[in-house]
Amino acid sequence: MRCTPFLRNISTTKPSAKLLERVRRPGYLAKLVRPEELAPLFKNDDYIGFSGFSVSYPKIVPSAIADHIESNNLQADPATKKKFNLFSGSSCGPEVEDRWARLDMIARRYPHQVGKDIAKGINAGRIEFADKHLSMFPQDLNYGYYSLKKKHGDPRKPLDWAIIEATAITEDGWIVPGAAVGAAPEILQSAENIIIEVNTRIPNLEGLHDINQSFVPPHRQAYLVTHPQDRIGTTAIPIDPDRVMAIVESDAPDNTGENTPETEDSRAIAGHLIEFLGSEVAAGRLPHSLLPLQSGIGNVANSVIGGLAHGPFDQVQVWTEVLQDTFLKFLDSGKLAFATATSIRFSMSGFEYFYDHWADYKDRLLLRSQQVANSPELIRRLGVIAMNTPLEVDIYAHANSTNALGSQMLNGVGGSAEFLRNAKLSIMHTPSTRRSKNDPTGISCIVPFASHVDQTEHDLDVVVTEQGLADLRGLSPRERAPVIIKNCAHPDYRDMLMEYYERSLVECLKRGAGHEPHMLRNAFKMHTNFMEKGTMKIDKWD
Amino acid sequence: MRCTPFLRNISTTKPSAKLLERVRRPGYLAKLVRPEELAPLFKNDDYIGFSGFSVSYPKIVPSAIADHIESNNLQADPATKKKFNLFSGSSCGPEVEDRWARLDMIARRYPHQVGKDIAKGINAGRIEFADKHLSMFPQDLNYGYYSLKKKHGDPRKPLDWAIIEATAITEDGWIVPGAAVGAAPEILQSAENIIIEVNTRIPNLEGLHDINQSFVPPHRQAYLVTHPQDRIGTTAIPIDPDRVMAIVESDAPDNTGENTPETEDSRAIAGHLIEFLGSEVAAGRLPHSLLPLQSGIGNVANSVIGGLAHGPFDQVQVWTEVLQDTFLKFLDSGKLAFATATSIRFSMSGFEYFYDHWADYKDRLLLRSQQVANSPELIRRLGVIAMNTPLEVDIYAHANSTNALGSQMLNGVGGSAEFLRNAKLSIMHTPSTRRSKNDPTGISCIVPFASHVDQTEHDLDVVVTEQGLADLRGLSPRERAPVIIKNCAHPDYRDMLMEYYERSLVECLKRGAGHEPHMLRNAFKMHTNFMEKGTMKIDKWD
Repeated sequence: MRCTPFLRNISTTKPSAKLLERVRRPGYLAKLVRPEELAPLFKNDDYIGFSGFSVSYPKIVPSAIADHIESNNLQADPATKKKFNLFSGSSCGPEVEDRWARLDMIARRYPHQVGKDIAKGINAGRIEFADKHLSMFPQDLNYGYYSLKKKHGDPRKPLDWAIIEATAITEDGWIVPGAAVGAAPEILQSAENIIIEVNTRIPNLEGLHDINQSFVPPHRQAYLVTHPQDRIGTTAIPIDPDRVMAIVESDAPDNTGENTPETEDSRAIAGHLIEFLGSEVAAGRLPHSLLPLQSGIGNVANSVIGGLAHGPFDQVQVWTEVLQDTFLKFLDSGKLAFATATSIRFSMSGFEYFYDHWADYKDRLLLRSQQVANSPELIRRLGVIAMNTPLEVDIYAHANSTNALGSQMLNGVGGSAEFLRNAKLSIMHTPSTRRSKNDPTGISCIVPFASHVDQTEHDLDVVVTEQGLADLRGLSPRERAPVIIKNCAHPDYRDMLMEYYERSLVECLKRGAGHEPHMLRNAFKMHTNFMEKGTMKIDKWD
Repeated sequence: MRCTPFLRNISTTKPSAKLLERVRRPGYLAKLVRPEELAPLFKNDDYIGFSGFSVSYPKIVPSAIADHIESNNLQADPATKKKFNLFSGSSCGPEVEDRWARLDMIARRYPHQVGKDIAKGINAGRIEFADKHLSMFPQDLNYGYYSLKKKHGDPRKPLDWAIIEATAITEDGWIVPGAAVGAAPEILQSAENIIIEVNTRIPNLEGLHDINQSFVPPHRQAYLVTHPQDRIGTTAIPIDPDRVMAIVESDAPDNTGENTPETEDSRAIAGHLIEFLGSEVAAGRLPHSLLPLQSGIGNVANSVIGGLAHGPFDQVQVWTEVLQDTFLKFLDSGKLAFATATSIRFSMSGFEYFYDHWADYKDRLLLRSQQVANSPELIRRLGVIAMNTPLEVDIYAHANSTNALGSQMLNGVGGSAEFLRNAKLSIMHTPSTRRSKNDPTGISCIVPFASHVDQTEHDLDVVVTEQGLADLRGLSPRERAPVIIKNCAHPDYRDMLMEYYERSLVECLKRGAGHEPHMLRNAFKMHTNFMEKGTMKIDKWD
């Protein structure tokens, strides 16, 4: 079946009126099937790419595959067990990804994920996972870096399958995505067989996307973008219609959760940050409309964007990875002139409101592929102001975005490192502590040595917690540590961290090694104390 | 004196015949002075920018300043002591930088340095130093990030002084640099007063450079380069002639040392690497002419480039930061079609040969500013193959490029991170061990946890030592560790590292945290053992 684009032994079905409206390429309608007919085609060790980036992932085909495996009890027997190599721009909804993980259907997963069960599978050693900068994942997929061990199928195609959600199909057979572009263009380019889920519940979002051709070296060209609203491509993803094996109709919504609620701390952080941006404008280092903003995920990001909706800056531009609900407030405030991203990840109620008012928003939004949205080239050219939340930051401004206690994967590095490395202003915002089981401030987010480093000291300009803001620009490591500790650490940890720094300084200067003072024997003592006692509050350094 | 570009109380001098040939702007000749007359003008806490990148740094004015301070014994008394804030694209010759450091004339130094005495000053706490990605330093200087605390002088100018070496001056008063461009364009743009050293010993290198205008956001444009030989600028650095305060004539050579000699190990590493590149060509993942090469500094880099001069690849292109002596061999072999960099750092005998044969080389070489040569935009677009030497790499492929034992600064991150992050193939090459005082293999370059992280696991594709090569593309951390240990670690450390990995795996899987297994309590045990006993060979893990 893999070697031919034609359907054999699969009965086609009749299109609904809604589907006829969306699929403007008549040839595709002859390939309309029910998803359960496709499910048995997927073989153990197949390489599968999904569209999507938090949203706009395929829903009914992956569910049909899971149904097939579950109802036939295939996973119980090694001879029938199926594990797939799964690639998607970022994360998929839990009804797909977590379910596949629970059924132990995932052998390998790149480059990001969100979900309790998939994280559990990764940390239990059942799923091989590597996180990768999100703009690099699609090119590495095209290069064949993720399929070096793949022995079956077309050697020119890294993937056996692309399963892609569309909200419409053009006359040329091109794909109009949903509320995310992500890595869909490169996944389509990399796949031997294409299955399209045409989602007729979501409106036809034609015009929202800018799809540029993805070249590989030595034929790559500049991205000629100098403003968030610049377009450099087409409104649909070009594909070879002959590789489209089947289409299915989908009525499933993007299964997104609610936004993390704001807290007193997140509002305090937003306050410090907006004050800082104001002082940069006053000093002439930023224009009054700021520079294009990137804002991460989570409640601090929500508070910052919510704060800007009432803030002093006008005609603000956004160049980011994902738009969350508070961007609706920002758009409605009239202060946000234009926003571009690779994904719109609203809550389900946020989407309902958004689709109802689609006409009001569509001219101020643009979605691009993650290779472009997260590209170092454009982040640096535009002078983006990048704001992200880490797990922990150390006293010299290295940050951990991924692995709790150095080893436990949460979601992955995502786009944080490409934004923070290349921004004009690189900002990390975090509460100064988190609650542990037995201590309301048992985890300090400011530590002596980050237990995993995703962002280096060379990449951060500003660290901010509810305690205050540390402006690190132009400071040496010996200058940074006291500023971070005094301005950002929680009072419960301030003296402890200061003692670490001061003792490290004395010891290192003594042996002529005092550039970035550490006591390596104690560098992770707060972390190991937490593992033993449930709090980072140590008795003494040694 | 700072507020006016005119010379007061300074007697001008007469130009030599050689100088008259080089300075085509007659107005500048009226500003010709002897360097000792300028020396007293430099005040404590002044912000000074030097041209240069390993070479083409100013030589006689900095030496005159040092002479003035030394002969007047100014540093003995806090009331007369002078310490400067010194900025230069990369490093300067030891007769300048190390001498300034010995005289305690440097308060602050960004973003890189090479020299025993300056490193000593940094690690002793006398010099505030921060290393920064070399393409970002010039923009951050322009943004004012290094002069946030500067209270004197023109607030629009981050620097009080630019002291710049030229090999010629155009009719417009523009500056033709020496064998490096570095950050000279942005240092000139940032400075209130400009002093030019016209070097008449070095040939007039007009035509070797491509100088593009350096915009800041929101006015930045794409770098329209798709091939190493593409030009996007002028052959000289445009400046405002009114800001030129003085010119001086210089006859001093670039004071470069010899190249680090090749060893059996460096040749073995080069062998593994060239074999790997050959297999990538055979697999169709690289063209037969490869893709533009970046090669770091040191004997491994020399062996690699030397090996390519006899290698199977033709019409090779180079896009790198610095060209070393072995590039002459590569050029002479006829296999290197074109090379572009920000600096040519040959040995003194290499330069002699190069300048004697200047006509043969000049059409195959181009020098750019470090903001362009090291730009993520171009490294990614061109698909560069990046090769650099770290201090140590850990079992998950995080690398330390800067701080020995986490705290002792060597030279700085340089351009390693921007090349490795953005390359199509990111390669780290290192001997598997280094000699300690009491053990020929006392230092393992493969460690459980890098004691300082400059390159993350998300940035490296390949690690290679004399033992072998680890291809990490598409591997999860749990897959990477055994491959790195088995292929790259020295036999003296292989079992020790494997035991660390395997015990970490068991412990972390037990608590559901096995994505990147570590025993944090033992993560730096090899390092602390070295500090105590002079060898990383531990007795047991615990």
